[in-house]
Amino acid sequence: MDKQDWIADDLKYVWHPFTQMKQYEGDEKPICIVKGEGIYIEDIDGNRYMDSVSSWWVNSLGHAQPRLAKALYEQACAIEQVIFAGFTHKPAISLAKKLITLVNNRLKHVFYSDNGSTAIEVALKMAYQYWQLKGKASKKKFIAFENAYHGDTLGAVSVGGIDMYHKVYRPLLFDIIREKSPYCYRCPCGKEKEHCRLECLQGVEEILKARHDEIAAVIIEPLIQAAGGMIMYKAEYLTKLRELCDAYRVLLIDDEVAMGFYRTGKLYAYEHAGIVPDIVCSAKALTAGFLPLAVTLCTDELYYAFYDEDKDGLKTFYHGHSFTANPLACAVANENLAILQEMNMEEYLKPKILAFKRGLEKFRNYPHVGDIRQWGMVSAVEIVKDKRTKECFAYEEQIGKKIYSAGLRRGVLLRPMWNCMYFMPPYVITEEEIDSLLRLAYDSMREVLG
Amino acid sequence: MDKQDWIADDLKYVWHPFTQMKQYEGDEKPICIVKGEGIYIEDIDGNRYMDSVSSWWVNSLGHAQPRLAKALYEQACAIEQVIFAGFTHKPAISLAKKLITLVNNRLKHVFYSDNGSTAIEVALKMAYQYWQLKGKASKKKFIAFENAYHGDTLGAVSVGGIDMYHKVYRPLLFDIIREKSPYCYRCPCGKEKEHCRLECLQGVEEILKARHDEIAAVIIEPLIQAAGGMIMYKAEYLTKLRELCDAYRVLLIDDEVAMGFYRTGKLYAYEHAGIVPDIVCSAKALTAGFLPLAVTLCTDELYYAFYDEDKDGLKTFYHGHSFTANPLACAVANENLAILQEMNMEEYLKPKILAFKRGLEKFRNYPHVGDIRQWGMVSAVEIVKDKRTKECFAYEEQIGKKIYSAGLRRGVLLRPMWNCMYFMPPYVITEEEIDSLLRLAYDSMREVLG
Repeated sequence: MDKQDWIADDLKYVWHPFTQMKQYEGDEKPICIVKGEGIYIEDIDGNRYMDSVSSWWVNSLGHAQPRLAKALYEQACAIEQVIFAGFTHKPAISLAKKLITLVNNRLKHVFYSDNGSTAIEVALKMAYQYWQLKGKASKKKFIAFENAYHGDTLGAVSVGGIDMYHKVYRPLLFDIIREKSPYCYRCPCGKEKEHCRLECLQGVEEILKARHDEIAAVIIEPLIQAAGGMIMYKAEYLTKLRELCDAYRVLLIDDEVAMGFYRTGKLYAYEHAGIVPDIVCSAKALTAGFLPLAVTLCTDELYYAFYDEDKDGLKTFYHGHSFTANPLACAVANENLAILQEMNMEEYLKPKILAFKRGLEKFRNYPHVGDIRQWGMVSAVEIVKDKRTKECFAYEEQIGKKIYSAGLRRGVLLRPMWNCMYFMPPYVITEEEIDSLLRLAYDSMREVLG
Repeated sequence: MDKQDWIADDLKYVWHPFTQMKQYEGDEKPICIVKGEGIYIEDIDGNRYMDSVSSWWVNSLGHAQPRLAKALYEQACAIEQVIFAGFTHKPAISLAKKLITLVNNRLKHVFYSDNGSTAIEVALKMAYQYWQLKGKASKKKFIAFENAYHGDTLGAVSVGGIDMYHKVYRPLLFDIIREKSPYCYRCPCGKEKEHCRLECLQGVEEILKARHDEIAAVIIEPLIQAAGGMIMYKAEYLTKLRELCDAYRVLLIDDEVAMGFYRTGKLYAYEHAGIVPDIVCSAKALTAGFLPLAVTLCTDELYYAFYDEDKDGLKTFYHGHSFTANPLACAVANENLAILQEMNMEEYLKPKILAFKRGLEKFRNYPHVGDIRQWGMVSAVEIVKDKRTKECFAYEEQIGKKIYSAGLRRGVLLRPMWNCMYFMPPYVITEEEIDSLLRLAYDSMREVLG
């Protein structure tokens, strides 16, 4: 089969996620990737692209990483899958132990599932049932945030706050309490950064004060609301939110699916705030982006609420997927953790984070750049029509899509969300490649915006 | 580390699915599996167990199947993961094409996701949004069945009908219309099999007649309500249900997650009924039980309702997971399909299905066997306290758990659900092994029940 046949079959048989298939079929033909190495992916014609988005925020150690491939193969030759009720296996035990040892705090137990959405569903169900078991049956509500994204299963969608993705399904969702997005550049309280005193948390404080007896948990993406447009906020916000949750006896669920595993420069983003959540969800880079695998970490307090004689079966946590703790995925995650440790990842990333910080400066004076923001290995440039008023380009102008196309022509995969161009490459990117990436992104933006 | 250390770490760090951890920690220590081959799994002490449940209904070609391991490794050395929006890859295209070519009917498009629960969430959201896009905004409700199980994410839980798993989460679920379970042995209409005229479908017919304008879809497990206790029903039921859905313009969602890929002797269970559903969900054995991967198949009618210029972004199907169509999982699924075809699976299974049918006869006269049922490679024995009244053993008597323990001592993994002992082994089981499995199961049952 030649290239045309592959693309024709793709268009005929495959319905792609988050994709308007007519548009995809039209001007923007799909790109068929056949191999990868380091931060590069290569298509069927031999074109190479710099993967600035870590293939949807998952890859960390580069593509087709040979040690991970080998760990995977060795596990597949031993045992590929084990029923995880009544039975267990070494890769899952090792991984859980390492994860708990690494955090070295109140998080003590690991519940496995398959992806970010399921890790969130586990967290929501666990938090909900916890209060039922503790005799606080009225604590049934969740607080979540505008611009939040927690996944696409209907429980995760319920706590999501991006209308375009979520609104149509409203009648299938449970009610939540929605609070303001900590969107510093477009402060919901009209403050400037220098004068911010976390006014955007006042709503949360008021609702917790008035209704804490109804509220099971607050769920939040730490430091960055990623799918909402790489909206970034201060670590102090998380610190204060933890204090409020403590004060009003409400659980804090921390969605580290995108930010965990060093994306912000630390193992988990919550560390920047000096706090410990009650529940932490992690996935994506947990396997260095090789395979779907997720974990939901929780405290003893949560765990032991379910731990009992349970004669009537009502204290069991009824959640599970057939492939829970799949040995193949766990084996890759174990090798990933070994590599991260050998590389001393936190130190390893520091010069790269600085290289981004330096390189982003060139965007500052560009007339259509409204904001530049960065947390560790994630950085973003928010493009505006008018810098003074912060007016956005209209959806129909498709700025993001045009920059995407301009990037591809230059050999770089950029995938702006709305008017937010962001950079989130595999960690193995070199400082030279960071400079090159930012230059190509700048040129792509200029090509579109003039 | 020796065995005790592994088990101690498991109990310390891992929260297992569908498991009361205190019970698990107590009398029934977890079994640590280290390798597998064919239908056998082996623990850390060298004990071998016959895997009669296909490691939670997923394995089909035996454990650590070498061709699948090799396909996996080759893919990992090329490219392990590709962002699946704007980009595509050969393993996903090949797999989608084969899946559609194999069914050779109205099902024309493949939407990938990660596991059975997500395949169901995709189906529910797709069916729901379809009617919104078709201008039938009132069609928002789903019909589902008592004893149904469709997964553990909250959308999937909403259409589930097993109180023990689902009841506690009720306030987080959307409302559905629940109809009778087609539980032939305990007919909800009080009929005997010989005189059955599908009376249990009358409720569905009535509700469709009265409220079809409110109903988006019916969702059902084909032929077998698996997690409900391997409840089996006649193919004619599905045939009639399809007719009703056609007559009242309601979509039929077929949950083939457990039964697809030859579990009932045919590629999909719906084939026994001579029908084609509008949406088919499949997972588990899709990768022969190696890796989590799921597909939701749909018709042109569904697909083209979303296919449009979509200037405002409202016709896009907003669902996706980072690892959607993971190339590693797709590569394994492709090799699985190649093997299934080479083995001529439908023919290959016929003598094995007969061996089960023959072997199950020995259970018939046992005083505590109420029902024996079989669909293809799935068979079940329903254990009762009183054969005449069909009275069940009480939950507290833990019959299933005792048989599980008795089985393990004999080197067979049985995992009865409540009072239902079932057999669902990998397809590579030989006729001799089937006889042996049934003998061991019989002995285990007798040990417990006398």
